[in-house]
Amino acid sequence: MSRIEMHPSRWGNPAGATDLPASTRGLVDFAFGARDTPARDDVELPASRLAAEHLAALAALLGEEHVIVADDVRRIRTRGKSTPDLLRAREGDLSDAPDAVLRPADHDQVAAVLDYAAEHHLAVVPFGGGTAVTGGLAAARDGFAAVLSLDLCRMQALREVDTVSMTAVLEPGLRGPEAEALLAEHGLMLGHYPQSFEYATIGGFAATRSSGQSSAGYGRFDAMVVGLTVATPCGTLELGTSPANAAGPDLRQLFLGSEGAFGVITAVRVRVKRLPEVKVYEAWQWDSFAAGSEAMRRLAQDGLLPTVIRLSDENETALNLASQSDVGGESSGGCLMIVGHEGTPAQVDVRRRLVTEALTGLGGTALGEERGAAWAEGRFHAPYLRDSLLDVGVLVETLETATFWADREELYARVSEALTTTLGEKALVLCHISHVYETGCSLYFTVAAPQAEDPLAQWLEAKAAASQAMVDAGATITHHHAVGTDHKPWFGQEIGPIGASILRAVKADLDPSGILNPGVMIP
Amino acid sequence: MSRIEMHPSRWGNPAGATDLPASTRGLVDFAFGARDTPARDDVELPASRLAAEHLAALAALLGEEHVIVADDVRRIRTRGKSTPDLLRAREGDLSDAPDAVLRPADHDQVAAVLDYAAEHHLAVVPFGGGTAVTGGLAAARDGFAAVLSLDLCRMQALREVDTVSMTAVLEPGLRGPEAEALLAEHGLMLGHYPQSFEYATIGGFAATRSSGQSSAGYGRFDAMVVGLTVATPCGTLELGTSPANAAGPDLRQLFLGSEGAFGVITAVRVRVKRLPEVKVYEAWQWDSFAAGSEAMRRLAQDGLLPTVIRLSDENETALNLASQSDVGGESSGGCLMIVGHEGTPAQVDVRRRLVTEALTGLGGTALGEERGAAWAEGRFHAPYLRDSLLDVGVLVETLETATFWADREELYARVSEALTTTLGEKALVLCHISHVYETGCSLYFTVAAPQAEDPLAQWLEAKAAASQAMVDAGATITHHHAVGTDHKPWFGQEIGPIGASILRAVKADLDPSGILNPGVMIP
Repeated sequence: MSRIEMHPSRWGNPAGATDLPASTRGLVDFAFGARDTPARDDVELPASRLAAEHLAALAALLGEEHVIVADDVRRIRTRGKSTPDLLRAREGDLSDAPDAVLRPADHDQVAAVLDYAAEHHLAVVPFGGGTAVTGGLAAARDGFAAVLSLDLCRMQALREVDTVSMTAVLEPGLRGPEAEALLAEHGLMLGHYPQSFEYATIGGFAATRSSGQSSAGYGRFDAMVVGLTVATPCGTLELGTSPANAAGPDLRQLFLGSEGAFGVITAVRVRVKRLPEVKVYEAWQWDSFAAGSEAMRRLAQDGLLPTVIRLSDENETALNLASQSDVGGESSGGCLMIVGHEGTPAQVDVRRRLVTEALTGLGGTALGEERGAAWAEGRFHAPYLRDSLLDVGVLVETLETATFWADREELYARVSEALTTTLGEKALVLCHISHVYETGCSLYFTVAAPQAEDPLAQWLEAKAAASQAMVDAGATITHHHAVGTDHKPWFGQEIGPIGASILRAVKADLDPSGILNPGVMIP
Repeated sequence: MSRIEMHPSRWGNPAGATDLPASTRGLVDFAFGARDTPARDDVELPASRLAAEHLAALAALLGEEHVIVADDVRRIRTRGKSTPDLLRAREGDLSDAPDAVLRPADHDQVAAVLDYAAEHHLAVVPFGGGTAVTGGLAAARDGFAAVLSLDLCRMQALREVDTVSMTAVLEPGLRGPEAEALLAEHGLMLGHYPQSFEYATIGGFAATRSSGQSSAGYGRFDAMVVGLTVATPCGTLELGTSPANAAGPDLRQLFLGSEGAFGVITAVRVRVKRLPEVKVYEAWQWDSFAAGSEAMRRLAQDGLLPTVIRLSDENETALNLASQSDVGGESSGGCLMIVGHEGTPAQVDVRRRLVTEALTGLGGTALGEERGAAWAEGRFHAPYLRDSLLDVGVLVETLETATFWADREELYARVSEALTTTLGEKALVLCHISHVYETGCSLYFTVAAPQAEDPLAQWLEAKAAASQAMVDAGATITHHHAVGTDHKPWFGQEIGPIGASILRAVKADLDPSGILNPGVMIP
């Protein structure tokens, strides 16, 4: 495998990282006063604690080359890609490194590892793309003989394609582009494009109930999944006899979002689509965030959603335009919306005409395709920018939530206020809506502020305040970033003690020795 | 309350029951040889076993008039409306009658009843419309001091309407038409029309994951629910912070379909729609069931579903036409499809044009609106016909399943064969598809045969064979009739031992004394 592997302190392909654009550096200087805050790169890992007998036994199960204790391999399986993860790594703290990285070839090997781990009290952390941003890879170590990173990277097959039912069975280790490439050979696609698309995996999408940038057209990942195979310490579960049914509770929904705490997802059967012949992305301008989001609500409730729809608030619009001033962007105020249509020419024609008519009637101004194409071009690049900003003394992170339409404005105000109150008046708080439903929408915040002396503590305080603001507003702690370890206190408030008790009961039933991603997700 | 209450041996409003149409009686005579098989109507109920102390204590909680042991009230809360339920009642067996009927006024009273029942080991069977067709109201009695029917009929409020988010909070005791009438005062509707619509309740729709005749346009009931309040013996659970999120598994989906075994649903927040200004139902003719179902598949996969779409197989088409011969029906062979469009005039225009174009291109012949209107008119009447047929020696029942498109034909053949093999060659097996998805569809069978000496045993044998055929074909045991007691053996096969273990673990956590609908749903 010649995949790009990510360093614990930076995003993505080192070759893809670019210096901060001059315009952005200028903005940072102006707003915050840029200063160099380089990452340490001479960091030692803690030694592996995996006992020789376990190493030998696991090697017998998987083959020697697939049980790895080498530092360089363990290093790139340490934590995920939240700003706290990066800050810890930049400061030289890799204390959450796994004791070994295991690479099972198939379902049976996963099951065998779980059996062995349960017997010998070894914690098992399923690992896909390593793009977690809420601490989902930082399992509790206490009381376990070792922590094993169960890297699913060898499980990369497209196992079945059914072009009548329009389903495909994918293995969990496939990254987004890999899955799409295999499906494209059959003229098919999944259509799931979260910002982490280039690195995140099918198993991760399922385990975290991921949602992509085309969710308006193609749905959330949990809505794409029609079947699951799950390995648990108690045995294997096969779910998904039909698109939908009334045969008791839908148990698929208990494993979607289970974040490796109930079992390891070893295959998913997903709904697939024909590859679109046409893709058009266009920009629209709105007088205000309120006007633009009202238009989104109307489209969703009138059954007129395009494939992609996202709306930046005034701050995000202004900053995007300012940072693109060298490519002809100019701020005329208001808010920018991206609208994308994909499908056959006939489908796109009909839908585009109806959506254009509706948006025009609601007060939007069409800005043409240039800015839409620019968005599509740069849609996966933001995490690189964060690294560059962390290098020059800027604290940057994102957080997100969702609520019902009637509560959108209050949620927006409360979270914004929590962030500016804790981070100070220099803090920039940007927001966009990128996932809409008939009854509500997501709110995705990007925050930037000058780094304090202890940027980690600085961020954790702001994050806690914003999280509490979400729960106090009756909203969810996360629309598509999952619970991990970071969101647990607020997730506990969200589902209450009975909800948490149910999750613990399911965990105890499926994983009685508690080895699966301990400390993650369950409050 | 002056609601129509259903007798245990017949469907619906006695005033709505009509004699068998002459044409149908003629058909029965010709096919099976009609003979009178009247129901007994002098049936004694078993005496209530509820001890005086419990009666007094429950009366103190709810008020004396809401704890009822009178035979006439207990009688109409006995079992549901499957053909086995009716056959048992017709033969004079009302041994499953509850020992008392409780009518709580609100959530707190439900919670108080559960507390008391858990402490004193009284079984609690939540009761909505009494339209269950899989034994979901026939709880296990053994080991319990008494069985209480928890009739939610007093919980009939429309609690909240949010026309921005387009949601409404409904109480569980509202019947379909009652909920729609309250919503209509706000210009809104739910759009959920199962065949049981006139009697079934909001709580029942949620607890059984019901699906209505407009599911193509408005979705399944579980897709309409965005929030739930549930009373459990361990406390109250509030779920639904947002349309969708990634905050752990979606616990709403654990209570949708839980059939009263995990808790009592005391409120649901549902997605609502504007009342349609236009409703058009039209008929289409297809050369074969295969051709018609292929057209349904294409519409679903091309995003062109109308509000209603249903397709009868050759047998069902022929029988419907024969029984309507007095209203101008004539059999020209092939298969009948009903296509319904609802919405604003503009929405209906666009959608109807696209669907018509597609269906014509796929080989369908438009038959106009007359037969579509006839379907809409008679859509809730079939259960009355069953009673009339049971009266003349015909065994009639329905059963249903769902699968992926690629497996539809094999499933159809296997279930049909299981039914004709067990019921003999005189048996009529009719089928329609009334719920379609991108990846698959439901199959709904209606079966008629001359009654054997023991029609109950005759049916149970046929039902078991058909159920095993479904599971053997990899399909679900039920698309929208739920598990109840009747489907448990096959549901257990469908989810396997690990799936069943999860359900038992959740049950043990929420209902440690096991009082909630004992013996129902969980294998």
